[in-house]
Amino acid sequence: MSDKKEFVKELTSMDEDFASWYTDIILKAELVDYAPVKGFMVIRPYGYEIWENIQSILDKKFKETGHKNAYFPLLIPESLLNKEKEHVEGFAPEVAWVTQGGSNELGEKLCIRPTSETIISTMYSKWVKSYRDLPVLINQWANVVRWEKTTRPFLRTTEFLWQEGHTLHETAKEAEEETIKMLNVYADVYENYLAIPVVKGQKSEKEKFAGAVATYTIEALMHDGKALQSATSHFFGDGFAKAFNIKYQGRDGREAYPYQTSWGMTTRSIGGIIMTHGDERGLKLPPKVAPIQVVIVPFAQHKEGVLEKVEEIRTILAKDFRVEADVRDWQTPGFKCNHWELRGVPVRIEIGPKDIEQGTCILFRRDTFEKTTVKLENITEEIGKLLEDIQTNMLQMARENRTKKTGVAKNMDEYLKLFEKGDGFVKIMWCGERSCEDKLKELTSATIRCIPFEEEHLSDTCCVCGKAAKHMVYTGKQY
Amino acid sequence: MSDKKEFVKELTSMDEDFASWYTDIILKAELVDYAPVKGFMVIRPYGYEIWENIQSILDKKFKETGHKNAYFPLLIPESLLNKEKEHVEGFAPEVAWVTQGGSNELGEKLCIRPTSETIISTMYSKWVKSYRDLPVLINQWANVVRWEKTTRPFLRTTEFLWQEGHTLHETAKEAEEETIKMLNVYADVYENYLAIPVVKGQKSEKEKFAGAVATYTIEALMHDGKALQSATSHFFGDGFAKAFNIKYQGRDGREAYPYQTSWGMTTRSIGGIIMTHGDERGLKLPPKVAPIQVVIVPFAQHKEGVLEKVEEIRTILAKDFRVEADVRDWQTPGFKCNHWELRGVPVRIEIGPKDIEQGTCILFRRDTFEKTTVKLENITEEIGKLLEDIQTNMLQMARENRTKKTGVAKNMDEYLKLFEKGDGFVKIMWCGERSCEDKLKELTSATIRCIPFEEEHLSDTCCVCGKAAKHMVYTGKQY
Repeated sequence: MSDKKEFVKELTSMDEDFASWYTDIILKAELVDYAPVKGFMVIRPYGYEIWENIQSILDKKFKETGHKNAYFPLLIPESLLNKEKEHVEGFAPEVAWVTQGGSNELGEKLCIRPTSETIISTMYSKWVKSYRDLPVLINQWANVVRWEKTTRPFLRTTEFLWQEGHTLHETAKEAEEETIKMLNVYADVYENYLAIPVVKGQKSEKEKFAGAVATYTIEALMHDGKALQSATSHFFGDGFAKAFNIKYQGRDGREAYPYQTSWGMTTRSIGGIIMTHGDERGLKLPPKVAPIQVVIVPFAQHKEGVLEKVEEIRTILAKDFRVEADVRDWQTPGFKCNHWELRGVPVRIEIGPKDIEQGTCILFRRDTFEKTTVKLENITEEIGKLLEDIQTNMLQMARENRTKKTGVAKNMDEYLKLFEKGDGFVKIMWCGERSCEDKLKELTSATIRCIPFEEEHLSDTCCVCGKAAKHMVYTGKQY
Repeated sequence: MSDKKEFVKELTSMDEDFASWYTDIILKAELVDYAPVKGFMVIRPYGYEIWENIQSILDKKFKETGHKNAYFPLLIPESLLNKEKEHVEGFAPEVAWVTQGGSNELGEKLCIRPTSETIISTMYSKWVKSYRDLPVLINQWANVVRWEKTTRPFLRTTEFLWQEGHTLHETAKEAEEETIKMLNVYADVYENYLAIPVVKGQKSEKEKFAGAVATYTIEALMHDGKALQSATSHFFGDGFAKAFNIKYQGRDGREAYPYQTSWGMTTRSIGGIIMTHGDERGLKLPPKVAPIQVVIVPFAQHKEGVLEKVEEIRTILAKDFRVEADVRDWQTPGFKCNHWELRGVPVRIEIGPKDIEQGTCILFRRDTFEKTTVKLENITEEIGKLLEDIQTNMLQMARENRTKKTGVAKNMDEYLKLFEKGDGFVKIMWCGERSCEDKLKELTSATIRCIPFEEEHLSDTCCVCGKAAKHMVYTGKQY
């Protein structure tokens, strides 16, 4: 919280070393700190407030689409985790095990949930008896733990916060529709709130969730050209229902298994915001999720009437916006401007004695660095328009970066050349074979991000093997 | 979710067996279910929605009093837990230990947080450098785990949900004021939202939080005369600051240790609501936290125009209230009335063809079972007044029950006789000695609940030993 040494000049240049730039930002903007246990993060108030804003947007959309929240236990017995074969193979290697409660060894070890399909399916098998109990539309806000080898705050941490929706439906069609509906909710939140453009698509067999029939994903491209899997939505068919014995009496009086989905979005989204929008001056936050949308920096605040005017403006703006006035008397206006630019506040109001005399103030917008002078009497209206404009412009800028960093390759020569020039999305045709998917990764470390819902026809043949192509896919190096 | 078998007649009588009545309510009203691991609970949507309402009320009050939310790690290394001697002695016997991550044994075992003083103090020691960084006013919404031997859903579970505030201050006085301020927030929420009257006071040395200088508490009396510790607020002095090396440069340029507080309220509060207000028909929810404030039950819903009218009323009421219409065509109105009474919905609207003809409907209030006929044109106003009245009346009824079950004893004869008649609060004078406190418990299993902020002078001598009394205390048997 002491910020005497924090100047923007201390940021690593993002073009020189994107990873160090990222670390600088998250620590200096006080979004997170490292915890005593490796791989864990502390989400500090400024970072957590972004998460609270994302939560409240998502939660509202979940409720509007008929979902209710519930809470399931943190600890899952080993025997439950083992019930669905593919699922346990996917998750067992990365769970934390509780073996001792108080001073006693436990009879059966318990894992900290890495995800909650197993425990939730166990409860659903008790609750669902009749078709009248369907659909079940439940979401959970929770922490989960996955024992990751390589971690980075927000992007991949041993513990992270997320929501996980778990639904049951009478028909496969209805469950599939739910899967896509929730993917569309995520895409909407990413594009229209986080200002991050995404590609919607399906994961390959290799990359899908352990135990799913199909995994759908939204994929975003970061400033450095790396891809971020931003949220996923899974269709399970009736596999989990069968493994966990979820049965109900159907409309025809017969016993049936329901069709199941799950879908999740995590604190990783904050990493996505940082890496999509950040620049050499630091963080750049989309207005809709910024903890502070407007900061007022007074100039010559010791002069008569300045602080009074600042408080007057703050009070007016607080009715419509998240606003703060930085009236610290031990910091210069220059320091304060850097301080809030680093923290990504979308709009800064600068105001001093002369401005007050003229009934004006200066608005600085963080996205383009433009300054304009506006009349104080129009301040609410001007700020409202400006925030909207910033929100739109940030999405536009992110789209442009993505377009610039998206290429097309028709064969491996072209493919390798593109990655020599720099990272990005590369669109290719693919035969659908696992061997070609593996080869891509071997040669470039890039993977198939998704088969997009909107495929283009780039050529007739697989970029890797030259045989007949089945799909167009997005490839890229992942975070 | 299937509810074909749920009739109120299946509830155990609360006077015959309060514990079974409680279990019946929580399961049949679908507030919770038992999890596969003993001592854990699943909070079902109807129960979780009560928690969401409590959360949103508390969170708003925390923010209004200047606090911000953050998130700290779930797992705490053993060495950190060990740093504060009294704290580890209090908590080590009841923590769950993670000893394995993925397939590897961990070098140091990690406990699942039973509370977060140790991890948060560790982070504060990194963050606080100057008096300008004070006060630190942070709250966390989280799950915690305590390996309890005897558990009961909401009241005492191995995992529970809570918030924990952790603050640092320059002076002891400021920290003490914070401790009391937050206790008052809890008391306000209990009385004015949950409709549960509480006694505010201080815990005895024996009963205080492990590592605290002083623990303050709000104590409530349940319908059966047992006491519920409903929320606590702790003043730590600079003990944790010294143990965790939290130091800052003071206004005088010298190094100093800050004064610390923590305060928490949990999902136990839902247990308090059930046991304060519930009756033979089931749950009775205070309107301010009820997931559904108004339920509309149509009569003869197959008749023309009934369902249309119900939907019209629902739409109007949804603007101001949490309202649902029970239009299930496979259940009778009688079933539905029982169903929603069991679930404690404060107001039921009954409406059928005749009511519609007359432009009226019947309002049933859950707290007094009274029915009144009102004009549909005044429905919003009538419901608004009724909900307010129910909220007030429920607090009043709870106060009356508490008064009825609060006695005074001047010596152990009187004391034992009171508990023979039944459980309740018993006010006594106390010499302040641990031996008398222990003796009380030994003889009756009742404990000192608190030294109230407002002590009365009942006599000059200790109820147990007859020596000079120091304090008046509330005693009772605890949940």
